[in-house]
Amino acid sequence: MKKEVTTLKKIAQLLEVSTSTVSRALNNHPDISEETAIKVKKLAKKLNYMPNIFAKGFRQHRTNIIGVIVPNILSYFTSSILKEILLQAETKGYRVIISESNNDIKKEKEMLHTMLQFGVDGILMSLTKHTVDVEPILYALNQKPLILFDKVSRKVPCTQIIINGEEAAFNAVEHLINIGKKRIAILKEFEQSYNSEKRFQGYLRALKTNNIPVDEKLILSTDDISLKKGRRLTSQLISLKDKPDAIFSITDAAAIGAIQTLKKFNFKIPDEIAVIGFSNSLSSTIVEPKLTTIDQPGNRIGEMAVKYIIEEIEEPKENSTSKTIEIKTNLIIRDSTLLSI
Amino acid sequence: MKKEVTTLKKIAQLLEVSTSTVSRALNNHPDISEETAIKVKKLAKKLNYMPNIFAKGFRQHRTNIIGVIVPNILSYFTSSILKEILLQAETKGYRVIISESNNDIKKEKEMLHTMLQFGVDGILMSLTKHTVDVEPILYALNQKPLILFDKVSRKVPCTQIIINGEEAAFNAVEHLINIGKKRIAILKEFEQSYNSEKRFQGYLRALKTNNIPVDEKLILSTDDISLKKGRRLTSQLISLKDKPDAIFSITDAAAIGAIQTLKKFNFKIPDEIAVIGFSNSLSSTIVEPKLTTIDQPGNRIGEMAVKYIIEEIEEPKENSTSKTIEIKTNLIIRDSTLLSI
Repeated sequence: MKKEVTTLKKIAQLLEVSTSTVSRALNNHPDISEETAIKVKKLAKKLNYMPNIFAKGFRQHRTNIIGVIVPNILSYFTSSILKEILLQAETKGYRVIISESNNDIKKEKEMLHTMLQFGVDGILMSLTKHTVDVEPILYALNQKPLILFDKVSRKVPCTQIIINGEEAAFNAVEHLINIGKKRIAILKEFEQSYNSEKRFQGYLRALKTNNIPVDEKLILSTDDISLKKGRRLTSQLISLKDKPDAIFSITDAAAIGAIQTLKKFNFKIPDEIAVIGFSNSLSSTIVEPKLTTIDQPGNRIGEMAVKYIIEEIEEPKENSTSKTIEIKTNLIIRDSTLLSI
Repeated sequence: MKKEVTTLKKIAQLLEVSTSTVSRALNNHPDISEETAIKVKKLAKKLNYMPNIFAKGFRQHRTNIIGVIVPNILSYFTSSILKEILLQAETKGYRVIISESNNDIKKEKEMLHTMLQFGVDGILMSLTKHTVDVEPILYALNQKPLILFDKVSRKVPCTQIIINGEEAAFNAVEHLINIGKKRIAILKEFEQSYNSEKRFQGYLRALKTNNIPVDEKLILSTDDISLKKGRRLTSQLISLKDKPDAIFSITDAAAIGAIQTLKKFNFKIPDEIAVIGFSNSLSSTIVEPKLTTIDQPGNRIGEMAVKYIIEEIEEPKENSTSKTIEIKTNLIIRDSTLLSI
């Protein structure tokens, strides 16, 4: 029996009726006598017949599948978004196909194409940090409902689910200013990163609002804002003649790297140099001192992404307006900015 | 144009030919004249026609989809397995549907049923820690190729991809004995957890091999072996009259909890009490002292899982023998077991 799939055809052959009789019997069609219906259902049950949902979706031009493309499935924040997308989609009768672009634009484009080929009902997408050419995305958007989340682009006229990165960064830097810091460095990514730029704008606004001059020497950019890079950029900062008294990193990973380097060179955290990260990762509570950071609720992003994509799938609008949904973040204050005095 | 799907039918209507002509033209059927073929392909390209792979799979009784069910997508180790499954499956022309059971046996059963209904070609599964009744899995195995990985059960006669947990634990505990430890505690899960039991067996074997008597007071079990539980169980251990001189935890999380509690009560790590975790998580390098742990290569597990499931999909055997593939682990020695003398 193993691996043999029970089809409508097989049931029909065994009962010597037509496949359409079997199909209608299983779908309780009124044309089918009760006697036949019972006979068909009994045999279908005995043979473990399962309707192929894809086949059903194919007939209805729907697959009930949502495709998701993320840059890196290993990121804890991404996992937390995916966890909620899976949960919410499932509750609403949708399945999810997850793909990873591995932060590679060529692969991202391929994945998008594959999703369309697969006939997904809608696409949820978080862009690679290198995505500049949005043509493939516009092309997909022309075919299927598509929503961007977390890593988005203003160039795509679709619904976008993001955190309030500018405001979050503003609040973080204001907090540093409130504890008396004046030379605040920022560790960020290069210009093409949407999220990084948002956070940088919040940093600049907080300095401006508080009449603190911008010092270019305190603005450090890197391609890959990792723990290692956090260490390296911090080494650069502490070799300045005018050292910073605080470091705001746009990721927890680089902030933890910063803490490691500061400790290695015996700087007192936060008294001499305070540190703030971004994303409230697991590690932010394990590093010592515990890291002040911004909590970005991945579950809320996942929840909104599924809510809006299903709306667009089930109630397609001719001229869908592209809206931006901003999810609130919270500053979590811990030891890395709690002055001991 | 938005959201209007180009079908074979539409192309046929526009060109005033039959749908089968269009289909055959697109598939380079020899019966179709070159002139017609070019005309069809041109229009198909203009209208962005995409063949629906699911529909194709349906006709071939294949969907080219592998279904994956994991207990918790938020686990870093699970993510690292998934990352490789996505990569490998994609390279071989398969898509992946990921579902999460959330460590809930009812949900696990539902997901399995849904995967079958969806008509996936094969299933990769990591069990919840509560899975005792394997009936639903045997039922699925009777229908489709199915492979268990990481969290498996001996009761399912299928290919299983696991790490050598018993040996890994044996090596970890021998390392503790080699640095002079004699009262070695273990933090583990309750009996129904397959992985936990394997590691516990390795612990017992290492003690026996080295003629160290088992002390029941040093064997602590919990339902959910988390950071918090690691703290709590360690508090229990250090309140014993005969304290342990080492703690082997079957997860990094609980080992980090142990370190936090030991530091809080001013125990010297590793001189007074050494600590070893399991899984080489990101946090194991951030905690201080850095945690000695066992590296389990998630990528190798993902790679093997995809290799074997595709083999079973593409070359089905009548009487498939159930084999167990053991992936090698490595003990990574760090500060939490490096004596300062």
